Amino acid sequence: MIAPRPDALVVEAVRSGGAPVATDPLDAEAIVWLDPKSPEGLSTVLAESRHVRWVQLPFAGVERFVGAGVLDPRIMWTCAKRAYGEPVAEHALALALAALRDLPQRSRAHRWGRQSGTSLFDQRVTIIGGGGIATDLVSLLAPFRARVSVVRRHVEPMTGVERVVGDDGLDAALDDAKVVVVAAALTPATKGLLNEARLTRIGPDGVLVNVARGELVVTDDLVAVLRDGRLGFAALDVTDPEPLPETHPLWAIDTCLITPHTANTAEMAAPLFAALVRENVERFVAGVPLVGVVDLNEGY
Amino acid sequence: MIAPRPDALVVEAVRSGGAPVATDPLDAEAIVWLDPKSPEGLSTVLAESRHVRWVQLPFAGVERFVGAGVLDPRIMWTCAKRAYGEPVAEHALALALAALRDLPQRSRAHRWGRQSGTSLFDQRVTIIGGGGIATDLVSLLAPFRARVSVVRRHVEPMTGVERVVGDDGLDAALDDAKVVVVAAALTPATKGLLNEARLTRIGPDGVLVNVARGELVVTDDLVAVLRDGRLGFAALDVTDPEPLPETHPLWAIDTCLITPHTANTAEMAAPLFAALVRENVERFVAGVPLVGVVDLNEGY
Repeated sequence: MIAPRPDALVVEAVRSGGAPVATDPLDAEAIVWLDPKSPEGLSTVLAESRHVRWVQLPFAGVERFVGAGVLDPRIMWTCAKRAYGEPVAEHALALALAALRDLPQRSRAHRWGRQSGTSLFDQRVTIIGGGGIATDLVSLLAPFRARVSVVRRHVEPMTGVERVVGDDGLDAALDDAKVVVVAAALTPATKGLLNEARLTRIGPDGVLVNVARGELVVTDDLVAVLRDGRLGFAALDVTDPEPLPETHPLWAIDTCLITPHTANTAEMAAPLFAALVRENVERFVAGVPLVGVVDLNEGY
Repeated sequence: MIAPRPDALVVEAVRSGGAPVATDPLDAEAIVWLDPKSPEGLSTVLAESRHVRWVQLPFAGVERFVGAGVLDPRIMWTCAKRAYGEPVAEHALALALAALRDLPQRSRAHRWGRQSGTSLFDQRVTIIGGGGIATDLVSLLAPFRARVSVVRRHVEPMTGVERVVGDDGLDAALDDAKVVVVAAALTPATKGLLNEARLTRIGPDGVLVNVARGELVVTDDLVAVLRDGRLGFAALDVTDPEPLPETHPLWAIDTCLITPHTANTAEMAAPLFAALVRENVERFVAGVPLVGVVDLNEGY
């Protein structure tokens, strides 16, 4: 069943994955849930169902569904983690290059100016989070010979990454990075991770890029360190609160660039989500493990 | 001899390449000329010399020296072509991503906005010019699976490039490109190459990036096609005239981003030029062919 309402691309994906599309919750063995903002709607559909064994959620981040207590542990939950890595990693690189090359300042200029800018070649980049965004960003950074550190819970070697460290290596990985990209799931453990002390470690020549969730950064601390230059630049695709109100002080800071959660637009996501649904339907029909399974203990 | 005045990095490069540094033109067998704006000064030094067999010029583009008639065909001329490919290719990618991801517009925003932007993944990119910038840009584009066309005089296969075409293939390569990067030498044959008809071919959804020389694009035509939306966006590191006067209409066009010839800043260029000098001195001492030799017939 595709709910709350069917989408042509997803219907085609389910069918080409080898399954019929149920229209009555009572008939459904699986639900592809398309509304990222309505865990309550999903609860209602689940309450009307009897045979559902699997629910596919639409976003990579599932903190809203976790928070609403919808994730019944008796069924299998998958989300779109790893499916949207490419466009989000691309956006992170675009923001980092723009910051290093002074493109925000140039976008506001109405006259020629002095030479400025820093090359990304051979620089140190730290990625917080070891999921699909990190993996795809490492690929984009490879031709720059960037020296990449990844900070993640599961410390294991990653291709193209110089250092993989756990939480206890975070501070050191911030100290020597030119660019820090936040690409981790939002969980109780990561909320507020980048506070004043940690932002200061990135330093006056450093660039912070956040393409994950606004709540991983303490917004008031970010305002403070940008204002007095303890942090060089912040490029944010996500904010806390979101959307950021027009009166917020971040809008007035020249060393801050904000995009309105567009790393992965609906247009970019649609074909990637359809491909994921097709793959998971094929796997469900064949009885093999699904991709993007949510770990209910870890919350992502 | 290093002229018009020695530079510490270049002195070190010549010495580590295996040659002493002459201080009198009469003693010099080779000159490393460091002032890109003074072909006349170089003429004066050459007139005082007797044994010079090789001159190393500082920039990739040598049109100013060609125009001044300084390039005596009885001696060997090398320039920095291919030496600066990496930072210039990086800047081209930064400009293209910024344009596709609407970063100039976002840099001027003071409020949240609607979703917008296009991904570079799987897009068609046309590069005009087949030198060092093109080669390095192809490497940076590889992880995006960009489908690259190169337009160049010498039509021969290039690694990672889907199509290499000559001048007769230029129009078709503009028609289907999402991004067009100008990275060719300025010669009588390329001056004004991108006129109104060709800019229109790139189209209302297309992005023009110029990291070569402003004169390859007809500036008045560019203003016209940007103003009425026949071209989607222009990101320029070089302009004609340069510097672009404050009164120029391009400054007022929101779909134009201008950086002040900073793709390869003096800071980025210095170590790359020193490495080139060292390599060419080693080659000169060993009697093997130099790199970056200027073809006096082609003018680059």
